[in-house]
Amino acid sequence: MTDRPDTPILDRVHSPADLKGMDDFKLRRLADELRAETIASVSKTGGHLGAGLGVVELTVAIHAVFDTPRDKLIWDVSHQSYPHKILTGRRDRMQTLRQKGGLSGFTKRSESPYDPFGAAHSSTSISAALGFAVARDLGGACDTGHGDAIAVIGDGALSAGMAYEALNNAGHLGKRLIVILNDNEMSIAPPTGAMSSYLSRLYAEAPFQDLKAAAKSAVSMLPGPFREGAKRAKDLFKHMAVGGTLFEELGFSYVGPIDGHDMDQLLPVLRTVKARADGPILIHAITKKGKGYHAAEHAPDRGHARAKFNVATGEQTKAPSNAPGYTKVFAGALMQLAADDPRICAVTAAMPDGTGLDLFAERYPSRTFDVGIAEQHAVTFCAGLAAGGMRPFAALYSTFLQRGYDQVVHDVAIQRLPVRFAIDRAGLVGADGATHAGSYDVAFLANLPGFVVMAAADEAELKHMVATAAAHDEGPIAFRYPRGEGEGVEMPERGQLLEIGRGRMIHEGSRVALLSLGTRLREVRQAAEALQARGIDPTIADARFAKPLDRDLILRLAREHEALITVEEGAIGGFGSHVAQLLAEEGVFDTGLKYRSMVLPDIFIDQASPADMYAVAGLNAADIEAKVLNVLGIEALSKRA
Amino acid sequence: MTDRPDTPILDRVHSPADLKGMDDFKLRRLADELRAETIASVSKTGGHLGAGLGVVELTVAIHAVFDTPRDKLIWDVSHQSYPHKILTGRRDRMQTLRQKGGLSGFTKRSESPYDPFGAAHSSTSISAALGFAVARDLGGACDTGHGDAIAVIGDGALSAGMAYEALNNAGHLGKRLIVILNDNEMSIAPPTGAMSSYLSRLYAEAPFQDLKAAAKSAVSMLPGPFREGAKRAKDLFKHMAVGGTLFEELGFSYVGPIDGHDMDQLLPVLRTVKARADGPILIHAITKKGKGYHAAEHAPDRGHARAKFNVATGEQTKAPSNAPGYTKVFAGALMQLAADDPRICAVTAAMPDGTGLDLFAERYPSRTFDVGIAEQHAVTFCAGLAAGGMRPFAALYSTFLQRGYDQVVHDVAIQRLPVRFAIDRAGLVGADGATHAGSYDVAFLANLPGFVVMAAADEAELKHMVATAAAHDEGPIAFRYPRGEGEGVEMPERGQLLEIGRGRMIHEGSRVALLSLGTRLREVRQAAEALQARGIDPTIADARFAKPLDRDLILRLAREHEALITVEEGAIGGFGSHVAQLLAEEGVFDTGLKYRSMVLPDIFIDQASPADMYAVAGLNAADIEAKVLNVLGIEALSKRA
Repeated sequence: MTDRPDTPILDRVHSPADLKGMDDFKLRRLADELRAETIASVSKTGGHLGAGLGVVELTVAIHAVFDTPRDKLIWDVSHQSYPHKILTGRRDRMQTLRQKGGLSGFTKRSESPYDPFGAAHSSTSISAALGFAVARDLGGACDTGHGDAIAVIGDGALSAGMAYEALNNAGHLGKRLIVILNDNEMSIAPPTGAMSSYLSRLYAEAPFQDLKAAAKSAVSMLPGPFREGAKRAKDLFKHMAVGGTLFEELGFSYVGPIDGHDMDQLLPVLRTVKARADGPILIHAITKKGKGYHAAEHAPDRGHARAKFNVATGEQTKAPSNAPGYTKVFAGALMQLAADDPRICAVTAAMPDGTGLDLFAERYPSRTFDVGIAEQHAVTFCAGLAAGGMRPFAALYSTFLQRGYDQVVHDVAIQRLPVRFAIDRAGLVGADGATHAGSYDVAFLANLPGFVVMAAADEAELKHMVATAAAHDEGPIAFRYPRGEGEGVEMPERGQLLEIGRGRMIHEGSRVALLSLGTRLREVRQAAEALQARGIDPTIADARFAKPLDRDLILRLAREHEALITVEEGAIGGFGSHVAQLLAEEGVFDTGLKYRSMVLPDIFIDQASPADMYAVAGLNAADIEAKVLNVLGIEALSKRA
Repeated sequence: MTDRPDTPILDRVHSPADLKGMDDFKLRRLADELRAETIASVSKTGGHLGAGLGVVELTVAIHAVFDTPRDKLIWDVSHQSYPHKILTGRRDRMQTLRQKGGLSGFTKRSESPYDPFGAAHSSTSISAALGFAVARDLGGACDTGHGDAIAVIGDGALSAGMAYEALNNAGHLGKRLIVILNDNEMSIAPPTGAMSSYLSRLYAEAPFQDLKAAAKSAVSMLPGPFREGAKRAKDLFKHMAVGGTLFEELGFSYVGPIDGHDMDQLLPVLRTVKARADGPILIHAITKKGKGYHAAEHAPDRGHARAKFNVATGEQTKAPSNAPGYTKVFAGALMQLAADDPRICAVTAAMPDGTGLDLFAERYPSRTFDVGIAEQHAVTFCAGLAAGGMRPFAALYSTFLQRGYDQVVHDVAIQRLPVRFAIDRAGLVGADGATHAGSYDVAFLANLPGFVVMAAADEAELKHMVATAAAHDEGPIAFRYPRGEGEGVEMPERGQLLEIGRGRMIHEGSRVALLSLGTRLREVRQAAEALQARGIDPTIADARFAKPLDRDLILRLAREHEALITVEEGAIGGFGSHVAQLLAEEGVFDTGLKYRSMVLPDIFIDQASPADMYAVAGLNAADIEAKVLNVLGIEALSKRA
């Protein structure tokens, strides 16, 4: 732990209003203090470090020039919002960041009036800001009033189609709207895509020095009468721009590129824009992810996400790990298969590290595709690859697969194309909270005709499922697995082909059958152990497949037990719903069966440890035990009261 | 009916191979015949007319120059593929178009090897084509072999983010890929968005005449040695381009604009591209939707979709309608409410006519937003509007709402923002077939915490639901309704506010309860009538809400009846699954209940009349009747054998 940095100016900032009286010199010092405070803060909690350090000056400049929360400041993705949180009255709660009951790691409407629109998935900010701008012009009432709408969006986020859709609409509507492009040539991974190259060219062609002068001269023309309006504004901005044709073709005025760490450029440019903008304007600011902290600037991911760390050395404190993580098991299994099968290729949407495809890419660079933050394209690109004779794996987080849902239905499922979906971060994910929960994939995939949907109970099962998916050419197939470490089970040398639609019996007991899908199997086993101590010996089965269901297994469990309980890490509509439909159709309920389906509850669960989140969800061993006792009509010891 | 046009050249075309020996003069005549044939054909079947007429020359030119099906020709949306179908061996089946058992109105992999990738939703073609191009370069095996990948995409489709994602990725990968931009300044409605304005400027600035000469001189430079490679290709294309910087910035070579109806431009340009392209290239062809058929060219929608019509007069044959259509009821109800409530505004994604918002826009232009084919943006834009104090209605087809699913979860549901979703085309839709079925919305919305999900049983109910949604400021709310005409029920002067989560009892009977959600209520009533003739008097209830469930009503129905059957126009995971979960949790199954859930079956249902599609689905009155008899253990008369 490091001592608190010395922050005399920051100490007197309780809200952005306190920035209003500061001169530019003081604002520059404030930025320096804010950077030190951000580093010290994240060193104690862990979290997203690099992105916040890249926007320290931007954060100070925006709050100094604009009038938040009346002006709506919307941070795209918002993992860069820590300095913003510190400036907007949340400094004293930063030590609770990303913890249970603490501050969110993202902006959140319920957390602060300075967070007018929450985020966590990328590329939503321009759409939301345009919504505020239009609501303002239509006279909508907003608690904090209406002023400017400002979206701060990274260059990585610009690879997503929805950002383009929003630019396209905003350019057409022509309303006053401020988009600040925070170009650090880095989202999480190095950038990819033609847009990214375009932005680099703009930067390469534009010497900051000229801009600095232009910005100063532009602002020196202020304050002036507004009567010249549009024309004058346009001329002013042209003064401050080098290139940017692409954005201008889309109806935006383009300003930049400017040095996003130089307050001498930021402040006058923002002041000019505030005074003069009369339509959509894009300010192109070049920043450096991890700026000002050596250990972050020089990390391959620029300090994207960090565990707690020592400020002096940059060394991170991480709990030692015994079992391999699911992500690595997936990547390893895929690499093993790819060695023998040249048809196997892999697609990630800007998450090579998170999905393990960075490892795959090292060995098979020509068969790895990072398409940018572009899940819609990723899915249909995979459909094209499959139609062209490849065996593509789309490796996506469950929550981000939602972005490509229509493509899954329309391009993959209806055409029965054998795209393999490797769905990481299934279930509750911990510190990233509700926005990153992988709750819905089983529900939204298992009702698609012809889809095979699997969930791994442990890392060995995952290895089998990767092999099974690779070999399945009859149609689409998905397998899901959670964030984090495996169970520490013995790993097979090679993955075995699972029979499609066959579950496995884990333990033959009596009275009650516990039918698990996914990694809750561990909790089911624990619950069964506790129940055995009470003389109840539940049967345990691992369904493996949410679709097709193992009808024989399920009907046998129903027939041979007084009660049947399904357990899964997903929302209603998924595995349990399919089981219930089968039981109903087969007339099992006609004569009575104590059937229960344990699913994620009907609430969004805030960040905490995964175990704590599952406690809130009521899906831990104790909850399963209690459910069994309740179903069997046995009074539980009220140990959880 | 009109006589068959005289088509001597077309008559000798059985596959695109037959075009290979034709000179340009003959190809031009073939195009004329193909246009006449297309008009005659659609006059007899109805269908999408305007789009096909716009690409007649393009279709002939592509098949003449390229080597389909080895070269992969992918039509975006593919409602413009009728001339392509006629040329690729399906001419004799065109009279079955969009009918049960007949040709699809779209391209379909299972229908022809000349349809390498099916479509129906827009903007997927570049992603798919890139998949084929990459599969080709990686050595993937394809039944028809691998050659060029060619996407033909309309200017309207370019407003969708996924098209941009694909351009961005293709420009980055740099592989040979041909994108033909079919710019008719028209998707279904007039174009919207900044990209559309950009394309218009390109066109306005480029005189075709110059291009014609350039194209001729370019092709005259062929055939030549390939040794100069990339540089020479780039120069050649520059010769053929005016403007197009935006696409060049994204890594594409730009050729155009060219006159897409002038074979003297099309053929040499395509030949040059085929011979010389060594990276991604975009050919910008200007076409006219409805080209060559007066009645289409002069219709406001350029003959987008037509019922059967008289070729001479253009007059359409439509069955007279007695009841108002659901779409109009929605629009009328919203306009009525908007008169008193300035917060109400409406958003469409390029479907003003289809959603009825064209009517709303006439009365309230400043409160209507057509964002282009951009459902992702549409949803989050609405979230921003709601956060800004407006009462936004997102009017989308069920199947297209899938495009904005992550935004529904992340931006609307998690933030509990009161966005109103008016979900048109819910359930099976008829001639457009499986790709347009609205099957999943209840399943993918009803498991989102805080969401209210309603389904209208008739047009009066729809009017109530519009009012209920408008007044609901507590969180997101959706209401779904089908394509087509209402039931002809008496319409209330104003919509009434429904109590959230309360269904309505339709008829109190005994033994079996039929619990309907949506417009299957008509079939349920018919089934009940038939059953009454057999001495069975079912109770009938309309759930109105899939979420929150009317617990009291459902538990009462379960308690008071031997059997409970839910009926809905949606896939598993929706209403019936929620009812089953409630019954299970309440222990209703413990002691036995004959519970059944009638949902869409686990197949994609091909086009037919909606009634026929529901017959395939097993959701018509006869099916409901049979289900009741089966559940009650009564032998049905085998009248459907």
